[in-house]
Amino acid sequence: MENKEEDVRLGANKFPERQPIGTAAQTQDKDYKDPPPAPLFEPGEITSWSFYRAGIAEFIATFLFLYISILTVMGVQNSPSKCASVGIQGIAWAFGGHINPAVTFGLFLARKLSLTRAVFYMVMQCLGAICGAGVVKGFHKTLYMTKGGGANMVNHGYTKGDGLGAEIVGTFVLVYTVFSATDAKRSARDSHVPILAPLPIGFAVFLVHLATIPITGTGINPARSLGAAIIYNKKAAWNDHWIFWVGPFIGAALAALYHVVVIRAIPFKNK
Amino acid sequence: MENKEEDVRLGANKFPERQPIGTAAQTQDKDYKDPPPAPLFEPGEITSWSFYRAGIAEFIATFLFLYISILTVMGVQNSPSKCASVGIQGIAWAFGGHINPAVTFGLFLARKLSLTRAVFYMVMQCLGAICGAGVVKGFHKTLYMTKGGGANMVNHGYTKGDGLGAEIVGTFVLVYTVFSATDAKRSARDSHVPILAPLPIGFAVFLVHLATIPITGTGINPARSLGAAIIYNKKAAWNDHWIFWVGPFIGAALAALYHVVVIRAIPFKNK
Amino acid sequence: MENKEEDVRLGANKFPERQPIGTAAQTQDKDYKDPPPAPLFEPGEITSWSFYRAGIAEFIATFLFLYISILTVMGVQNSPSKCASVGIQGIAWAFGGHINPAVTFGLFLARKLSLTRAVFYMVMQCLGAICGAGVVKGFHKTLYMTKGGGANMVNHGYTKGDGLGAEIVGTFVLVYTVFSATDAKRSARDSHVPILAPLPIGFAVFLVHLATIPITGTGINPARSLGAAIIYNKKAAWNDHWIFWVGPFIGAALAALYHVVVIRAIPFKNK
Amino acid sequence: MENKEEDVRLGANKFPERQPIGTAAQTQDKDYKDPPPAPLFEPGEITSWSFYRAGIAEFIATFLFLYISILTVMGVQNSPSKCASVGIQGIAWAFGGHINPAVTFGLFLARKLSLTRAVFYMVMQCLGAICGAGVVKGFHKTLYMTKGGGANMVNHGYTKGDGLGAEIVGTFVLVYTVFSATDAKRSARDSHVPILAPLPIGFAVFLVHLATIPITGTGINPARSLGAAIIYNKKAAWNDHWIFWVGPFIGAALAALYHVVVIRAIPFKNK
Repeated sequence: MENKEEDVRLGANKFPERQPIGTAAQTQDKDYKDPPPAPLFEPGEITSWSFYRAGIAEFIATFLFLYISILTVMGVQNSPSKCASVGIQGIAWAFGGHINPAVTFGLFLARKLSLTRAVFYMVMQCLGAICGAGVVKGFHKTLYMTKGGGANMVNHGYTKGDGLGAEIVGTFVLVYTVFSATDAKRSARDSHVPILAPLPIGFAVFLVHLATIPITGTGINPARSLGAAIIYNKKAAWNDHWIFWVGPFIGAALAALYHVVVIRAIPFKNK
Repeated sequence: MENKEEDVRLGANKFPERQPIGTAAQTQDKDYKDPPPAPLFEPGEITSWSFYRAGIAEFIATFLFLYISILTVMGVQNSPSKCASVGIQGIAWAFGGHINPAVTFGLFLARKLSLTRAVFYMVMQCLGAICGAGVVKGFHKTLYMTKGGGANMVNHGYTKGDGLGAEIVGTFVLVYTVFSATDAKRSARDSHVPILAPLPIGFAVFLVHLATIPITGTGINPARSLGAAIIYNKKAAWNDHWIFWVGPFIGAALAALYHVVVIRAIPFKNK
Repeated sequence: MENKEEDVRLGANKFPERQPIGTAAQTQDKDYKDPPPAPLFEPGEITSWSFYRAGIAEFIATFLFLYISILTVMGVQNSPSKCASVGIQGIAWAFGGHINPAVTFGLFLARKLSLTRAVFYMVMQCLGAICGAGVVKGFHKTLYMTKGGGANMVNHGYTKGDGLGAEIVGTFVLVYTVFSATDAKRSARDSHVPILAPLPIGFAVFLVHLATIPITGTGINPARSLGAAIIYNKKAAWNDHWIFWVGPFIGAALAALYHVVVIRAIPFKNK
Repeated sequence: MENKEEDVRLGANKFPERQPIGTAAQTQDKDYKDPPPAPLFEPGEITSWSFYRAGIAEFIATFLFLYISILTVMGVQNSPSKCASVGIQGIAWAFGGHINPAVTFGLFLARKLSLTRAVFYMVMQCLGAICGAGVVKGFHKTLYMTKGGGANMVNHGYTKGDGLGAEIVGTFVLVYTVFSATDAKRSARDSHVPILAPLPIGFAVFLVHLATIPITGTGINPARSLGAAIIYNKKAAWNDHWIFWVGPFIGAALAALYHVVVIRAIPFKNK
């Protein structure tokens, strides 16, 4: 083990990939420092205004995310059209947000935020999602109920296992992209371009939607699935609902593990 | 209150989010300084060439924006097609501009420009929009009049309240994105990448169009709505026209408020 | 005049726009210097290998541009489809290149390259375009001839004047974007992100295509129009061919003028 | 020859293009240094953990690439739709990955990685592709077999020569873009934006798909073609299979040659 750690440390210096695609300048290690892991509970945190500001921002962002994405689903499905397959693309773009309990869970597992903050974020995300779906229903109740309300369920022709698998892999892709885009090493090098991070994350979400809308409607976000299920509130949406919590949380955990063990090789580096 | 301010200031330092998504390097506060608020009237400003240059640029940009976007609407609606829902996507991209009285109003409220300049910009935007729509009508008058001329109105199946709500939320999303993309804090960090700002702004506009074209045709830009209404000039377009001024201005004001109070927490920081 | 120059120079310092959208950090003038204007003829230039390397690169890039874009036009038009309007979007993306005599002409007018180099580039662009279109015809001659060969002409329902206007405005948008993206001032600030320049240029081309494909098929690139006309070689393509040289060259000249006089205000700054 | 080298070296300094599009800041040569060519065999490399980490990453990425792209092909082809041509666009986006033996081969030819590493990467890419296609088949076997399984073959109306040509040119475009995006010169200037590299690469892949899906379904990635062929396993897929190895490898070699000789002019610079 000692031997292997040595190997890894030396190997990183002796056998670097030469200009790996997309990470060309990865050798200058001097300019980054991993932040220390977040404590589980940070005393005093919940009395700070910045804690509640962050929660409000989660609420508003998730509200807008559901508002836009479900309105888009309504519009596309309502068109008297044989081009439904094409509409998938439009829907997928509309889901380019990243306000998501699975993302929060993955970041918590990697110790990027405290347990208090993680739970508070998830609650605000779910509240925002419920309100966002509710406003869309308020705009046009008949249309909303007729067209499925944006609720996730396993589609005809696929088993619950297929749906669970699709949610796991899809969330893995999303959370893995989030880690890549917000990684300390990359952040250090990219400190001038943090605004870029949403682009690859949105693109990953888009690709997952292209692939899995025919299977589950693509959840990969438990807040989004919960908000739509509560406002739609039909048995079909509730029967499969566990898939859209279990799948994303497993996918997020695998992504955190993959990031930490394979990509960053942290267990082999830190004594 | 004194206490709460202290809390906020300390909180910002003691309980930072660790690597919030998309704003990874936000902790280095050293390299930015908010510019002072613009005065309402800046003596001598209106005799400077830079003042008129900016106005000409607003005119040309809004002209091109209307020219391209209304030509695109004409082309897509003219096709003998059941795929109208798909065309929404094409239309939405074409509206990726940001030359917009609601944006100017939001920036004025946040004291980013003087009242003189704000009014002058809005006038030039409206003139540019009228000319842009006029040229498209000149190209193919019959087609322009038959196809609605790109004018905004509340579509069948939705109430005026729905339309107003859709315009408020849509403009909130747009102006909130503008603030995020041009924020002093971010600008300082991103001083090398100002060219990026149009991308997220254009993307926000695109998402809002995907969502709300079925409701109002998506205004969220009073100059665009006014230009199309004047050149189209039919009663249907004028009846709902107030919605496309009141909605965007309310949305812009809410976005300015949200940005200043929740995101930047300025009232709690400045004594 | 003397007075006005003073005004402009002072004005630029005294009344800067505060955080104009997309150009947030424009006030630090210290870190850029306009390169001197290129001479008309640069002695010895045509005996350098770098001169011919650049010409070969123009040939290859324009070849690939025509190859990809005309193949795409073939594929989309060949599909037995009522969704032609949607296909426009796909076609437009495929034209995201910028290897174009109108761009070269605009950059020459702004004295960014010598006359020798400008002419040589245009010749290589035209040769590349002819070969690119030729290869596509070689792949599937019947399909190529049946489907119009990617040649530009003014479509039914529009006058030659409409076509000329559409080409002028479209090329104005393209060349104006090229100037914005490669401007020395911006280049200095953006020296770390030159790779970004193709993105907004490609996006501008995309928007112009969305708007004007129904009118002329969208030229805004004389090499592309010439290559398709020579390989397609039917009377209809040749009758309107002058429009696709005159329009783009006027548009490029207007864009160079607008950039130099309004955006950069160079005549008012340099004594 | 000596004379010509001198010419090239001097020419590079004496006659630079002024602000070539997209490479505006190319004159500051001070801040980059080409890494030395990789040795064919690097002793000790295969005992390092970083070697296997890289292989695992190739496996996972290629697995996800096949999983997403073939699921997307299934969904789009399954829709009862005359808009298949539009679906091309969706499919093309889904192929935006770059985990590809042809890319590895091109980088090996340019001596960016050792032979050991190149072979290991290709093996892991093929294994990942087989598993990715296998999982999609597992989700819905009937649908997978009915719809062609994402396998590449030369379509009706085109000769094997057309298919080979399309694969050569398509892979040339891809690998040329990879070289541009990861070039040492550019990497030095762009050291703060490595995250951008996937965007132009994905865009190049997208354009190639728009153009050549009607001809071969677009391979330009032997691992992807092999994975689909093995899991689909029908005679039609195997008959043309050599095209999807020979074409991409020729295209990659040409791109490496073009990059080294024309773009970088390395043979004329190094004594």
